[in-house]
Amino acid sequence: MLKKLGRQTLELVKPPIIIASAGVVGKKEGEGPLRDEFDVVFDDSRLGKDSWEQAESALQKAAVEKAIEKSGKAKEKIDLLFAGDLLSQCIGTTFGIRDLGIPFAGLYGACSTMALSLAMASVFVASGGADLAVAATSSHFCSAEKQFRQPLEYGGQRPPQAQWTATAAGSAVVGKEGKGVCVERICFGKICDLGITDANNMGAAMAPAAADTIATLLKESGTGVEDYDLFVTGDLGAIGSKLLTEVLQKDYGVDLGNRHKDCGTMLFDIDSQDVNSGASGCGCSAAVVCTHFMRRLREKELKRLVFVGTGALMSPVSSQQGESIPAVAHAVVLGGEGCC
Amino acid sequence: MLKKLGRQTLELVKPPIIIASAGVVGKKEGEGPLRDEFDVVFDDSRLGKDSWEQAESALQKAAVEKAIEKSGKAKEKIDLLFAGDLLSQCIGTTFGIRDLGIPFAGLYGACSTMALSLAMASVFVASGGADLAVAATSSHFCSAEKQFRQPLEYGGQRPPQAQWTATAAGSAVVGKEGKGVCVERICFGKICDLGITDANNMGAAMAPAAADTIATLLKESGTGVEDYDLFVTGDLGAIGSKLLTEVLQKDYGVDLGNRHKDCGTMLFDIDSQDVNSGASGCGCSAAVVCTHFMRRLREKELKRLVFVGTGALMSPVSSQQGESIPAVAHAVVLGGEGCC
Repeated sequence: MLKKLGRQTLELVKPPIIIASAGVVGKKEGEGPLRDEFDVVFDDSRLGKDSWEQAESALQKAAVEKAIEKSGKAKEKIDLLFAGDLLSQCIGTTFGIRDLGIPFAGLYGACSTMALSLAMASVFVASGGADLAVAATSSHFCSAEKQFRQPLEYGGQRPPQAQWTATAAGSAVVGKEGKGVCVERICFGKICDLGITDANNMGAAMAPAAADTIATLLKESGTGVEDYDLFVTGDLGAIGSKLLTEVLQKDYGVDLGNRHKDCGTMLFDIDSQDVNSGASGCGCSAAVVCTHFMRRLREKELKRLVFVGTGALMSPVSSQQGESIPAVAHAVVLGGEGCC
Repeated sequence: MLKKLGRQTLELVKPPIIIASAGVVGKKEGEGPLRDEFDVVFDDSRLGKDSWEQAESALQKAAVEKAIEKSGKAKEKIDLLFAGDLLSQCIGTTFGIRDLGIPFAGLYGACSTMALSLAMASVFVASGGADLAVAATSSHFCSAEKQFRQPLEYGGQRPPQAQWTATAAGSAVVGKEGKGVCVERICFGKICDLGITDANNMGAAMAPAAADTIATLLKESGTGVEDYDLFVTGDLGAIGSKLLTEVLQKDYGVDLGNRHKDCGTMLFDIDSQDVNSGASGCGCSAAVVCTHFMRRLREKELKRLVFVGTGALMSPVSSQQGESIPAVAHAVVLGGEGCC
């Protein structure tokens, strides 16, 4: 059952349960501070495939299959799979999952896709539209660089504000009952575009959208910062995270204090792994939330957190045409095991 | 309220109402047999913009604004907008609607997007997740040719099986109550890929997905062909339509008889408008269903139809890499005014 708390915020009255989740990553991600959290670390960035795009598809498929395997459910029992990715026409997703035989609803939320797919899967389960639904997304450094920036062989220099697209995928299986993390509330974001045109500075483009969604969630649900252990943003990186704090304080009077974490600053060791402002890509927050944060919630180390997926909605063509970068952020409130 | 009739099929127990819909098209579409149905015909294919991508964004925005205007609702009352398009990273949508201030959930269903967005908007309204939701999509001949095939200036020859991407957009406003067409059932499709690699032959790639979704809907809802006045497919074109009939008969034992219509064969006069196998593009079925078929349902000329949106999920990159074309079809059962 769903209860509207405001225009953008929904309460899931009988919260659906994330009965299993999985995160799989590439070699560099597997050398970062979260290395022990992931289900699989692929040392071969190509995953044995002929192209980067095929490698990304294999990565997303691996995450979905691992999450389903951990759930103990047969894939024939999954009613609907919500997924998308950064590649043009979402081929990371469509070619990754085409053989699974699971009914499929495609999403496009750029790097907000893990939050968006988790929101959709949760709404469908909570409303009786699905008994079991899967959420998933992926990104791959090489397929993303090739598409959004330059051929890898060109060896283009990366400015300090740039982020490193994660080679990673995450997936979650959502059901009506069982043990696991629960999904309590959802806040769908509006598009924000404050005029940033630097396609290397996603963090700055996305921070205002994250701020708007966080402030809206708090306002519409009548909750305060102190009601949540953490606000986990997707991939704002170091620069975007700083901006989020500033925008929330200045424009909305909201102070996150020490309760903000950003997956983009957690996936790599920024100092030693040469990733400039941090990690990005749909797979970044997908892999970090579906492993590290889900574990901490399951183990009751965290009671309740807000996962804010952040997406920059530009394309190579729009950037080449000099357009600014619209962004969107969707929030999903996750409750620790047994707390819903 | 939602009731699951099977793995893929949902019944909307208190069916939501399409309180308004709109379709806007370009010049060539405005010269076709449906010319009198559309809300706006733009004689300037650029819509006064500097690029084809910006023109497509303007087209989608025009459809959304027209549908909202016809609904008599303020845009601040719309809780959620579901939309997507064919352009890489869905910039037709994101740049089109960024200024509207409506919470946004992005979709990627290629040419099935009108059915997918209508399904999502209907599920959210039926389950109490939104009071008013909007569904929308668009396509533009020039932005699509440039992206998927060749530069327009090249003047590449089009094979007989090719379809003409419609310059068109459609949008629908879905609410809990009011007068209008109702959404009774939804069937989410699975990805089908029978190995077609000719990116000019979308109809053949999509026909098996349409057949699978139609057969699943009939089976899971316990209904027969005779329970529906029409089965309206998105954009199979002349070749795909013929294949749909064959596949349904041979593989599923379902005979649509004279109850099949395809928006791809209706938008243009195939003989005189030089469009080879017919029309395609997200905007094709969006504009035709949101005007012509909604009108016939409102006027009770049709009692009940199945709208089957069909999407080919390849990208220019996947085609260049020699991949086959995965396809998906989603079905939405629309009931005539007052019949739910």
